[in-house]
Amino acid sequence: MIDLASPETADLRQRLADALRDNNPANPLTEKHLAAVLADTAGNPGRMIRPQLVWLGAVRNGLTPDEADQLASAIEYYHAASLLLDDLPCMDNATVRRGRACAHRTHGEASAILAALSLINRANALAQLAFATQPGAVRIRALAGLDCCLGPAGLTGGQARDLRFAESTRSAREVSAIALGKTGALLWLSICLPTLPAEPNPVEWRMLKALSVYWGLAYQAVDDLRDVMCGTAQTGKTANRDGTLHRPNLAHALGQPAAQRRFARLLRQAQGALARLQRENGKWDYLAAFHHTVFAGLAPEANRAASHLAA
Amino acid sequence: MIDLASPETADLRQRLADALRDNNPANPLTEKHLAAVLADTAGNPGRMIRPQLVWLGAVRNGLTPDEADQLASAIEYYHAASLLLDDLPCMDNATVRRGRACAHRTHGEASAILAALSLINRANALAQLAFATQPGAVRIRALAGLDCCLGPAGLTGGQARDLRFAESTRSAREVSAIALGKTGALLWLSICLPTLPAEPNPVEWRMLKALSVYWGLAYQAVDDLRDVMCGTAQTGKTANRDGTLHRPNLAHALGQPAAQRRFARLLRQAQGALARLQRENGKWDYLAAFHHTVFAGLAPEANRAASHLAA
Repeated sequence: MIDLASPETADLRQRLADALRDNNPANPLTEKHLAAVLADTAGNPGRMIRPQLVWLGAVRNGLTPDEADQLASAIEYYHAASLLLDDLPCMDNATVRRGRACAHRTHGEASAILAALSLINRANALAQLAFATQPGAVRIRALAGLDCCLGPAGLTGGQARDLRFAESTRSAREVSAIALGKTGALLWLSICLPTLPAEPNPVEWRMLKALSVYWGLAYQAVDDLRDVMCGTAQTGKTANRDGTLHRPNLAHALGQPAAQRRFARLLRQAQGALARLQRENGKWDYLAAFHHTVFAGLAPEANRAASHLAA
Repeated sequence: MIDLASPETADLRQRLADALRDNNPANPLTEKHLAAVLADTAGNPGRMIRPQLVWLGAVRNGLTPDEADQLASAIEYYHAASLLLDDLPCMDNATVRRGRACAHRTHGEASAILAALSLINRANALAQLAFATQPGAVRIRALAGLDCCLGPAGLTGGQARDLRFAESTRSAREVSAIALGKTGALLWLSICLPTLPAEPNPVEWRMLKALSVYWGLAYQAVDDLRDVMCGTAQTGKTANRDGTLHRPNLAHALGQPAAQRRFARLLRQAQGALARLQRENGKWDYLAAFHHTVFAGLAPEANRAASHLAA
């Protein structure tokens, strides 16, 4: 099984780092603050779990390696843009991201917004180019998926409900709906979108969609537990924002022990979907590798968070 | 010749108003502030000169009326999104737009930003759908045009230079470069993009591109003269922002009489391009109609502005 964080996949990570840098939408005439935010974003892509996931899904399902580079860059740029915007003073008012001062603190809010728009624009071109040689039906399905995941039914809608959470029922149900709109939508784009050229069978498609839900909710649950428990130095972003800003947080809505149980159940559900997928076709093993790489590291964290509270 | 503001084209304007409302990306579950900004934007589209221009260009160059609706909505949504963002406190800090309070004043900055992103996202889907049945080469050319016009080489780049104008040479050259990045890019999308399916000949293509430059610079020149001369009540947006915020303004860079001469020359150049186009093919008459409708109304305004200053 591929280990996405292993030295064996270092070539892929280097390839993707190069693609993210080369696809940077800035040009030599770009205004210097905008160019700086774009260079920082393209040059500081984190662990690159998500681009690896997209890339492997794309090449195993019929895209060429070059098309897979384009799609992986696109999804990573959408994600990077959402982080630039979420951190703004009028949204989460964060100061630290990936261990560094947020872009709007270093280069101003306008530059952060324009960089996000530039990334989204380049991502749109790259995502379409990746599918450009596919049959019309596949292209239309890709378009519909992007439209749904990035708009009011997905990312922008989830963020809007997130920011107005204090005005909502504040229920665990609302917390989950928001997590699905934000993290779940990006995971659909990372898991389901790259598989469209292979036209997965109905069972595979149902499991792929379910996986993006389970992973989205599980990842958000860990993030919520982390926000409650850890300092800025540990998470690389501003800590305890949810409490301060009355933002959705599963640990607040359910209590931490129940949030931890929910997390454990989501992991089991994801494992069930992964097993079902591998019974359909061995090619889906890369998804199990992703599960192992990301959640094997996160599960102890959720446990630690819960036991810290119980103490 | 079609008069784009005449009662004869009322059916087209109604059709386009319906399309803009129907393509609104909000759904019944959309958070209410986000939904309100989207509804206001989709329901208050101004004179609809731009969507008519796109629609006529599209149907005369091989798109179906339904595809033309999609493309016209897309370009109008890009434009509406750019207005929502330009008005933000961290950009132009405007208070009034199209005669009403700006969206960020009524619904908050975050809702204005998320609405702009939602419109851009829907616009991307619509623009691709409009070209979905075209040959691969046409689709790639459309993608490249959108990528160029909306990113750092176009809209976001122009806005970034606009906001940092005080740090630049402040020359008339820089003013024009910014106008090309902002207004010129949107006009390329309105004039050139819809004609791609017909594959204009080299002369036509050169003239179409030149026209988007002349119109872009001319329109910006009038806007600059207006900003200097007129009050908020007359323009429907916050007046004298350029002077207050040290923003690019041709009338400031050249003096008003020279700005007015520049405007008159641009109109003559545009008329030359229009005449050349019509010698190639009678179908380009709709562009002359647009020129007449928009600039016949604007020329006296520029003259009035200049004579007011001379007094």
